[in-house]
Amino acid sequence: MNDTAFDFDRYDRIRPIRWTGDALELLDQRKLPFEVGYVRCDSSEAVADAIRALTVRGAPAIGIAAAWGLVLAARSVDAADGAEAAAKLQPAIDHLNAARPTAVNLAWALARMRRVLVSAGSDWRDVIEAEARAIADEDLAANRRMGALGAALIEPGSNVLTHCNTGSLATAGFGTALGVIRAGVAQGRIDEVFAGETRPWLQGARLTVWELQQDGIAPTLIADAAASHLMKSGRVQWVVVGADRICANGDVANKIGTYQLAIAARHHGVKFMVAAPSSTVDMDTPSGELIHIEERDPGELFGIGGNRTAADGVGAWNPVFDVTPHDLVDAIVTERGVIENPDAGAMREAFGG
Amino acid sequence: MNDTAFDFDRYDRIRPIRWTGDALELLDQRKLPFEVGYVRCDSSEAVADAIRALTVRGAPAIGIAAAWGLVLAARSVDAADGAEAAAKLQPAIDHLNAARPTAVNLAWALARMRRVLVSAGSDWRDVIEAEARAIADEDLAANRRMGALGAALIEPGSNVLTHCNTGSLATAGFGTALGVIRAGVAQGRIDEVFAGETRPWLQGARLTVWELQQDGIAPTLIADAAASHLMKSGRVQWVVVGADRICANGDVANKIGTYQLAIAARHHGVKFMVAAPSSTVDMDTPSGELIHIEERDPGELFGIGGNRTAADGVGAWNPVFDVTPHDLVDAIVTERGVIENPDAGAMREAFGG
Repeated sequence: MNDTAFDFDRYDRIRPIRWTGDALELLDQRKLPFEVGYVRCDSSEAVADAIRALTVRGAPAIGIAAAWGLVLAARSVDAADGAEAAAKLQPAIDHLNAARPTAVNLAWALARMRRVLVSAGSDWRDVIEAEARAIADEDLAANRRMGALGAALIEPGSNVLTHCNTGSLATAGFGTALGVIRAGVAQGRIDEVFAGETRPWLQGARLTVWELQQDGIAPTLIADAAASHLMKSGRVQWVVVGADRICANGDVANKIGTYQLAIAARHHGVKFMVAAPSSTVDMDTPSGELIHIEERDPGELFGIGGNRTAADGVGAWNPVFDVTPHDLVDAIVTERGVIENPDAGAMREAFGG
Repeated sequence: MNDTAFDFDRYDRIRPIRWTGDALELLDQRKLPFEVGYVRCDSSEAVADAIRALTVRGAPAIGIAAAWGLVLAARSVDAADGAEAAAKLQPAIDHLNAARPTAVNLAWALARMRRVLVSAGSDWRDVIEAEARAIADEDLAANRRMGALGAALIEPGSNVLTHCNTGSLATAGFGTALGVIRAGVAQGRIDEVFAGETRPWLQGARLTVWELQQDGIAPTLIADAAASHLMKSGRVQWVVVGADRICANGDVANKIGTYQLAIAARHHGVKFMVAAPSSTVDMDTPSGELIHIEERDPGELFGIGGNRTAADGVGAWNPVFDVTPHDLVDAIVTERGVIENPDAGAMREAFGG
C-alpha cells in the first residue's frame, strides 16, 4: 500500500473535534453509539471539563482538544506579544494540563503551543490558532502513515484483536491502532477484527464497534476476559493497540487490560503491536513504573449507563491504565517508522534524547 | 482450623435452593443483588428452564437443582418399582441434562439419581427424594471440608483474587472457592478479597459482592481486565476459583476469563488454586480440549441489565467457559484432599479411573 492508492474517504468518515472559528465542537463520546451529537465549548474551562468527563477521550484527541482550548483561553487575554500572552495564559495551560494525568499527548500539545507562543510577536493569536490546526492536521497525517507502516507488518489472511478505542474518535481522524486495522482491512490483509469491550467504560463495545460500522467494517465483540481463549483457538494473529504514553525504554502505558493482552499474546505466540504518534513518546520518562496511572471513580464499576448492577456499599479499585513492559511488545509503530523489539537503545536511536 | 472450631453460621447464611416438600424454590440469581426472591418450580420442565435461564447457576447448584427436578418429574409417573420408573423418567433426565452442557455436575447428579432409582423397589419415590437430599447435604459438607483444606494452603497476611461466583449461591451453601475464602478470612489468613466483575453476566459484581457482604466480608471489585495490573502491584498472592469440570489430566473448565487469570498468575508468581467438589471431576474426559464449551447468546455482550450499550447490528462471540491447562494450576482442592501440581498421574491416584 501507499497513501495515494488508499481510498481514505471510504475508511475515514468520522471527525470527533471540529473548530468552528469561534468555538470547539466535540462529538460527545459519553452518548455514543445511540446519540450522535456535538457539545459546544466556548472556553478553555469547558474544554478541560470535557476532557475530564470523557466527552472527548483518546490520547491524541485530548491533546488536540487542549490546543484548541488554549486558543479559546486567548480570547480573554490582552497581550502585546506572545511572551506576555504566554505568561497570562499559564493558569489556563496548567488547568488544561491537569484534566487527565496519564496520556502525555495532553502535556505535549500544550508545551508545543506554549513554545510557539513565547516567540510570537503581535500576531500571536494567529500563530497559536495556526499551531492548533497544525497539531490536528499532523495527527491525521501521522495516523495515515502509521496505518500504512503497521498494516505492512500483518500477513494477509490474519485476524486481529484490538482493545479500547484508538480510532477516529480518539484522534483527529483515521486512528492509531484502528488506523492500522483500517489499512489492513482495505488491503485485504485482515479478515476479521475482534474488539474487546473494554470495561468499565466500554470504549470497545460503545465506540470501536460503532466507528468501524460507519466505515463498513463488521467487528466481532468479545468480553475482555475471553481474549486468551480466543488466542488459544488460533483465531487471532495480532493484537493491535494504541498508547497513552511510551517511555524511553519502550514501556507502554495504555488502557487497563492492555498489559493482560500482552502477557496472553506472548504466551500464545500472538504478535503484539502498539501504534501511536510520536507525540505519545515521552523520552523524559525512563520506564513505565514512573508513570502516574490514573484511578477513576470506583462508581464506574458499579453499573453501566446509570444502571446499577453491584450491591450498595461495595468498594472497588478502578485503575484505568496499565503498563506493558517493552519486552512484551513486538513492534511500536509511529509515523516515523517501525521499532521492532523496542528497548532503550532502539528508542534512543529513533527518538534521540 | 478444624470444622468444630469454625463458626459456620457466622459465615454461611445463604441457601439458594430450598425444597418445600412439594416444590423447589430457587433464589432468583438474575435479580440479585437488588431483589432477593425465590422462584417456585413445580415441574422438572420448570427446573430445566430455570437452569437454562440462569435463575440457578453454579456447577454444584445446577446438579442439586436437577436432582430435585427429577423428584418433581416422578410425581406424574406411575411405576411398580425403580427400574420401571427409571425407564419412564428417562425423557425427563435427558431434558434436564440438556439444560446446560459444560458443568459435569449436572450429568453427575442425574446419573447418581438414576443409579439409585434403577435398583429401588416399590419405595422408589422415597429413595430418590432421600438421594436428592443427600446430594445437597454432601455438597455442603464437601464445601466446608474444602474450605478447611484450601485455606490451609494460604499464608497468613495474604490477599486473594477470585472470579465469577463460587459461593453459597453456586452450591448447596458455603461455596467452593468462596468457601476457601470464607475459611481463610475467618482464620485471619486472608486480609483482602478482590473480586473480578466477570463479564458478561457480572456474577462477581452482582453475586459475589452481595454474598460476601451478607457474611460481613467487604470485597474489592475490579474490572476483569485489571487483574494483571493488580498482580503486578504485588497486592494479591493467590487466585482462588471454582470449576465446572475437571478432566482426568487436571485440566479445568471454568468461567470465561479463568484461563487468562491462570496465565497472568504464573507470569507474576501468584499461586493458582481450584476448589471444587469431587462431583466436578470427570475422569472420563482425558483432557480439556474435549470439553464442550457453551456459547451463549451474543446479546449478553450488547448491554447490561436490559440497558443496551453496543451499536445495533454488531456481532459478538460469547463463550462462557474456558479451559485452564493443568500445568498452570498449583493446587486442586476437593473434599477428598489437595492435589498439588495436578497431572494425569496425580489425578488417577486421587480419583481412580
